[in-house]
Amino acid sequence: MRLTAFTDVSLRLVMRLAVAGEGELLTTRTAAAMLAVPYTHMAKAVARLAEMGLVETRRGRGGGLLLTEAGRRSSVGAIVREIEGSGDLAGCEDDPPCPLRAACRLRGALAQAREAFYASLDEVTVESLVSPPARQVLVVLREDGSPA
Amino acid sequence: MRLTAFTDVSLRLVMRLAVAGEGELLTTRTAAAMLAVPYTHMAKAVARLAEMGLVETRRGRGGGLLLTEAGRRSSVGAIVREIEGSGDLAGCEDDPPCPLRAACRLRGALAQAREAFYASLDEVTVESLVSPPARQVLVVLREDGSPA
Repeated sequence: MRLTAFTDVSLRLVMRLAVAGEGELLTTRTAAAMLAVPYTHMAKAVARLAEMGLVETRRGRGGGLLLTEAGRRSSVGAIVREIEGSGDLAGCEDDPPCPLRAACRLRGALAQAREAFYASLDEVTVESLVSPPARQVLVVLREDGSPA
Repeated sequence: MRLTAFTDVSLRLVMRLAVAGEGELLTTRTAAAMLAVPYTHMAKAVARLAEMGLVETRRGRGGGLLLTEAGRRSSVGAIVREIEGSGDLAGCEDDPPCPLRAACRLRGALAQAREAFYASLDEVTVESLVSPPARQVLVVLREDGSPA
């Protein structure tokens, strides 16, 4: 069981932005390098998080990425729920689709279990993720992804 | 968020075997065709489920696959827990690994959320998955994966 890479990248970014110092505006490129993810993945995550109102993108010289107040207060559950969406947890509609899909009881059971997964993450806020010792690791990240 | 294909195939097989009629012994090849999965995937799932004591494989003429009593009584949670294992839900140790992994609080939160996911499936038994109307769909599956 894995989260999508998209959710993974999004959460890494939110965590890093949550510890940004006053006036520290990371660019998408810098954040990608720091968090060891491809630039194109990071750019998509930035666009999605901005759409969700969690990240603000300031353009121009001295521009960069900022976690919004909503982003800071958000629960991890809310972010994961929104980004992962409600697709099937198994290959019900893959090609070829599962022959059981018309009357499968597992499908509903899996959806309910995912709800329990999200509910558990609803208790976790972005702020709580970046308290020490995580904060120190996040703050000192360099652009090559190594600690300073 | 997706289960691995391996778990998906394993659960399809367990469900189909749970409705097998008296003396009906499916072969791995027949089960693969019925459930629309590649033969090699099905063969691996059979081996794993046999190892777990959930499926019995009878060799020789008239041989085939049987759900054991333990398989019938098993919860979906127990099966998924065993097959999915306890690897990370995000790319913590991928190549390149996540630079946050040393002090990441998300990792623990995700592991706890997965435990809630499994616990939800602990309430679901294999038997309950194959009660009507799922039973009818399962029973009439043909080898091309279509209903009869």
